[in-house]
Amino acid sequence: MRKLRMGMVGGGIGSFMGGVHRKASAMDGMVELVCGAFSSTLEKSRETGKSLFLPEERCYESFREMIERESELPEGERMDFVSVLTPNHLHFEPAKMALEHGFHVVCDKPMTLTVAEGETLQKLVKETGLLFALTHNYTGNVMVKQARAMVRNGDLGEIRKVQVHYLQGWMAAEPDEQAAIKPWRADPSKSGVGGSLADIGTHAENLVSYITGIKITEMAADLGRIGQGRVLDNDGNILFRMENGAKGCMSMSQIAAGEENDLAIRVYGSKGSIQWKQEDSTRLYAKWVDRPEQTFTPDGNDIYDQVRAASRVPKGHPEGYLEAFANIYRNFAAHLMAVMEGKELPDPDYPTVNDGVQGVRFIYAAVESDKKNSAWVSL
Amino acid sequence: MRKLRMGMVGGGIGSFMGGVHRKASAMDGMVELVCGAFSSTLEKSRETGKSLFLPEERCYESFREMIERESELPEGERMDFVSVLTPNHLHFEPAKMALEHGFHVVCDKPMTLTVAEGETLQKLVKETGLLFALTHNYTGNVMVKQARAMVRNGDLGEIRKVQVHYLQGWMAAEPDEQAAIKPWRADPSKSGVGGSLADIGTHAENLVSYITGIKITEMAADLGRIGQGRVLDNDGNILFRMENGAKGCMSMSQIAAGEENDLAIRVYGSKGSIQWKQEDSTRLYAKWVDRPEQTFTPDGNDIYDQVRAASRVPKGHPEGYLEAFANIYRNFAAHLMAVMEGKELPDPDYPTVNDGVQGVRFIYAAVESDKKNSAWVSL
Amino acid sequence: MRKLRMGMVGGGIGSFMGGVHRKASAMDGMVELVCGAFSSTLEKSRETGKSLFLPEERCYESFREMIERESELPEGERMDFVSVLTPNHLHFEPAKMALEHGFHVVCDKPMTLTVAEGETLQKLVKETGLLFALTHNYTGNVMVKQARAMVRNGDLGEIRKVQVHYLQGWMAAEPDEQAAIKPWRADPSKSGVGGSLADIGTHAENLVSYITGIKITEMAADLGRIGQGRVLDNDGNILFRMENGAKGCMSMSQIAAGEENDLAIRVYGSKGSIQWKQEDSTRLYAKWVDRPEQTFTPDGNDIYDQVRAASRVPKGHPEGYLEAFANIYRNFAAHLMAVMEGKELPDPDYPTVNDGVQGVRFIYAAVESDKKNSAWVSL
Amino acid sequence: MRKLRMGMVGGGIGSFMGGVHRKASAMDGMVELVCGAFSSTLEKSRETGKSLFLPEERCYESFREMIERESELPEGERMDFVSVLTPNHLHFEPAKMALEHGFHVVCDKPMTLTVAEGETLQKLVKETGLLFALTHNYTGNVMVKQARAMVRNGDLGEIRKVQVHYLQGWMAAEPDEQAAIKPWRADPSKSGVGGSLADIGTHAENLVSYITGIKITEMAADLGRIGQGRVLDNDGNILFRMENGAKGCMSMSQIAAGEENDLAIRVYGSKGSIQWKQEDSTRLYAKWVDRPEQTFTPDGNDIYDQVRAASRVPKGHPEGYLEAFANIYRNFAAHLMAVMEGKELPDPDYPTVNDGVQGVRFIYAAVESDKKNSAWVSL
Repeated sequence: MRKLRMGMVGGGIGSFMGGVHRKASAMDGMVELVCGAFSSTLEKSRETGKSLFLPEERCYESFREMIERESELPEGERMDFVSVLTPNHLHFEPAKMALEHGFHVVCDKPMTLTVAEGETLQKLVKETGLLFALTHNYTGNVMVKQARAMVRNGDLGEIRKVQVHYLQGWMAAEPDEQAAIKPWRADPSKSGVGGSLADIGTHAENLVSYITGIKITEMAADLGRIGQGRVLDNDGNILFRMENGAKGCMSMSQIAAGEENDLAIRVYGSKGSIQWKQEDSTRLYAKWVDRPEQTFTPDGNDIYDQVRAASRVPKGHPEGYLEAFANIYRNFAAHLMAVMEGKELPDPDYPTVNDGVQGVRFIYAAVESDKKNSAWVSL
Repeated sequence: MRKLRMGMVGGGIGSFMGGVHRKASAMDGMVELVCGAFSSTLEKSRETGKSLFLPEERCYESFREMIERESELPEGERMDFVSVLTPNHLHFEPAKMALEHGFHVVCDKPMTLTVAEGETLQKLVKETGLLFALTHNYTGNVMVKQARAMVRNGDLGEIRKVQVHYLQGWMAAEPDEQAAIKPWRADPSKSGVGGSLADIGTHAENLVSYITGIKITEMAADLGRIGQGRVLDNDGNILFRMENGAKGCMSMSQIAAGEENDLAIRVYGSKGSIQWKQEDSTRLYAKWVDRPEQTFTPDGNDIYDQVRAASRVPKGHPEGYLEAFANIYRNFAAHLMAVMEGKELPDPDYPTVNDGVQGVRFIYAAVESDKKNSAWVSL
Repeated sequence: MRKLRMGMVGGGIGSFMGGVHRKASAMDGMVELVCGAFSSTLEKSRETGKSLFLPEERCYESFREMIERESELPEGERMDFVSVLTPNHLHFEPAKMALEHGFHVVCDKPMTLTVAEGETLQKLVKETGLLFALTHNYTGNVMVKQARAMVRNGDLGEIRKVQVHYLQGWMAAEPDEQAAIKPWRADPSKSGVGGSLADIGTHAENLVSYITGIKITEMAADLGRIGQGRVLDNDGNILFRMENGAKGCMSMSQIAAGEENDLAIRVYGSKGSIQWKQEDSTRLYAKWVDRPEQTFTPDGNDIYDQVRAASRVPKGHPEGYLEAFANIYRNFAAHLMAVMEGKELPDPDYPTVNDGVQGVRFIYAAVESDKKNSAWVSL
Repeated sequence: MRKLRMGMVGGGIGSFMGGVHRKASAMDGMVELVCGAFSSTLEKSRETGKSLFLPEERCYESFREMIERESELPEGERMDFVSVLTPNHLHFEPAKMALEHGFHVVCDKPMTLTVAEGETLQKLVKETGLLFALTHNYTGNVMVKQARAMVRNGDLGEIRKVQVHYLQGWMAAEPDEQAAIKPWRADPSKSGVGGSLADIGTHAENLVSYITGIKITEMAADLGRIGQGRVLDNDGNILFRMENGAKGCMSMSQIAAGEENDLAIRVYGSKGSIQWKQEDSTRLYAKWVDRPEQTFTPDGNDIYDQVRAASRVPKGHPEGYLEAFANIYRNFAAHLMAVMEGKELPDPDYPTVNDGVQGVRFIYAAVESDKKNSAWVSL
């Protein structure tokens, strides 16, 4: 085997996500960045490439040029997969074109602007057999995997109640000025019909789904748009019901003054419950009907074996956002290497195109419910 | 002046609330228990009285007997006020009769089973000029008072978002068996139309109101009834909207497996936010748009003066549930002593009959919304 | 039975400890304050008495007058025990005189200024058979009792290591001005040979002893005296060795800037360990060699039965400093009532005159070691 | 510029530190691993190299072979620096040989077995002008850097007291069996005169030095050796005095049952104090004499500019052990690149050969003090 070769769409100088994807993909030595269409101009793309020690000829002007030109390179040289980390409205086209040219895809969330686009990618993935990873990075956290294992194993009993919130404060102070910083996130033509729904709500929804494995069947949403001239939601509360009868509520906000990145979930079963907070990501709290509360840690006692494998360092040494992100890349890369070597890898553990479609449906259902004064909408 | 004389309705041997009210009222040396109708039989009432070193002749068979007989005692001997801590359906009658006989009242929450009963008490209080304290004890916490002072003083800016939850797990394991332990709480004829709504939801509602001073105008509720044959809610999620445009959500549960008494609130303004958790009651966390997070403590730095007065011990020494409860009694007693001495006490700080009526309205609105599949209902 | 009658020495208006002892002793309805020599003048003593609704004739000018006059009252009226809460140098005389006149004693710590004085009291207690409680109040905490039960029951295996610290910051800012506030604590003639040693070090020492039951055999101390003209220690670190071979260290300070009342202990055994912090007093953390960390709570799961009895409220409701203090009074009162009724009470749980002598020995050993440049000194 | 080329000594399959150094050095895309002498045999070394996708010819049998053969490669191909991550007794020789052959060095701690060896390296570094980084990785934590900046900037006032502990439990259960797992750590010929002193004590000492910049002048140590036949310390408590008059204490243990990796420090000044815990590495708590406690976060409000640069992700996203470790590599690599490009880099921020010598002196002073029954020994 050899390192996998990655081409990057987006992530030019000044992009936060570019550094994150590069560090996360480099960490485990399984992936090397070989080319990129990093920015909207060739100069900027080359400038980024130079800072990354890439040869100039593999810094492209556009994703179209990159996919076409890389396709023409010999197999031993051309990229193996494309990583798409552009603003929301620029996910669909490069992902589609990559799949059509036989490249595997890693894509940021929300996957697409519309459900139809999402289903198009889903169909393409099914037809081509190519791999598609969606970077719902929080599911890469070791303690999220432990929570999932505990729920799926029945440790908590029957699931009855889910509470999740995702609260940020970066739009609180001066929404209009802040919006100017990341203008595309405030612009429906680039962000889609959802604001905080797309940006953070989908993470919350995916976290519920990843941990419980229970489908959300309907939602009642009350969205907020704080700040002058604000079109997209930047705050909201959502009631939801799950297919097994469990009830839940979700709160999300980008105007929660003072919050940094407070994604947190609680899952209550008939025997016990778990709590996880992203800002305290290496501890999983389990409370029980008949035993004292327990604190689980990534490489600590009584961690499920498959979960322990997701940890890179011995117990007591914190792992964080980049390591969780790297778990998406590592699991995707391991899967892809297995495929390339003709091996079977049972149950690869990373979010896929199906999670992407579900996320877009979630956004649309919430927007519809909000328009109907919080009426219940099926998902 | 002298110690105030208290008569107690309810609180017999085996009652949890009896001990709480007695310890809370005794702590500050302003109140002495002089008589009681503690239980449903004279023997039991006398047994309780004996354990409390009360004379047998002031242990009564019923609240009716107590109020009548105490009324006939000379002024220097008879009780000054009645404390009502019976199950929900037995609040109205003794409170009403006490007021009608000229006794001040301390009453447990929810105040009454119906709004009409609540309004009757409200009218009586207005007409008689007697004092009426409702034991929404959590508002007695020093850090809740600091939160209130900060919000009211504008420290957080304009309030935009409120999150509150009250989660307990004692009904989680075997609801039916648990119900047997406190049968009246599962019986609508004794508990009223709300289960967890009445028991804990009203505390959450009162906490929002006490801290923010902003009226909840409408609510959309999705209630749960977990357990075989369960009639009253023991779980639920509620969206709410406030008169200033702020949005909120409330989650409450008595089947949240493993939770002990997790009442928690977050209030977000345009400049900053506060967080308080009852289980960690001596810390108030404030997060700011432009400064590092701060932790306030009861007798610590930068506490508002009127708040510091609510603390009984120097900084670093925890105060808890009983001290918060005692603050209701202490503020009520100070008010009553002032009245008895013909003094004015500006703005006495304890929940009143008005909070009681509001609480019952909250219960009815939530039940109505739930029946209408979570439609918005005005409060 | 009847309520026990308490006479108080010290605790006049302006005294912090007066309010604490009164609230703690009143909480459980077993003790009533009947008389006091609260201050150094009769006027002040009477002023305090009036604010407590005491009759003027039982507010005395001095402890001598109080003990003599109360001795002459009929048995059904005179006080049962004396509570001594004066500055350190005024513990010995009233405690001795009370014992000599047949009154039981509750006394603040450190018990006496010298070991000889302590031994005199110890001898008197033995001879008279009277009860003597020392208010090492932190041992009244429910989770401290759980720690003790776990250690004594062998849950942690063989004890190998103890870490304890008691850090306050109230002398940090301007030691000399602060010293002016509590002048007697900075004055060796009133405070004794130890400053922070006496004030907080003895609490730390008693906590180690109470939880582990293992004797400290020798100590090596390095004391600090921060601030101009400071005579007594207000900072220090102490190595210690225990009779079973375990090693420990203690850090104490009153110049630990920003600390409120950070008393904390960790006890490590061969199977597991426990951690308790006074400022987070209702949680006991247990870490295990072969199981996930557990959090114990006062009325929570798996609490030892005798420990649960020390809690006054149901799980999830914080108890604090006053409740812990009240446990000293409640256990003392229950013991005294049992004695008065001719019953046996097995193993009453409160610190006694023996703990008092041990505390004074601890102070002297630390001071001696410090003078010898931290040489080991036997305790 | 180009990526820096690293050769690795140690870190073969099964080595924990191998993966750590590789992930930490790869994260920022500034360093690529080009060769290694990973294990004690050529087969094993090649097996490791294969798993890392290295060419077979650059997997060497020994560090000697690696340094010699790499020296002979053309400049555009040969390694730039050597990373030494073998057991303690195998640091000195490869580091010395690398320096003698003109290679820069990254080296694990403790740097050498003896002070003489350390001084030899120190002299070589001075003579050759080559760069030498010591991987005291905990100083790479963003909040440690903030603590350092605050102390150095005088925010805390004059430093008076330092408390540090480093507690692990992995030797608690069955010391002898555990020792078998990492035999070299229990063997003085490989580990040196210190056990826990070398392994974790040096980290604690370096943390004190890094944050405060104040020299420890003397120490009094009481070391423990728990477990049958144990020769080296695995527990201990140390008093220390600093050159400015501040006092401190250090506790360290590898038999602290249940602890994972509890490195924690508190620094008290005249105005305020800071607290940092490695297991909660992204929060720095500051307590003040005259303001409420604050919590600082890596990319949060009021972080010093040079500190913020050490963070890789936006606020609220945890960074951990690997990121801190990567900061050593990143700062070393940036320094080396600057040197290679003939630029000056003011104050490169990573531990150097001087910290290494200091660490070995610390070990020897503690061992000497312990032998002298905890007498004070100059450092």
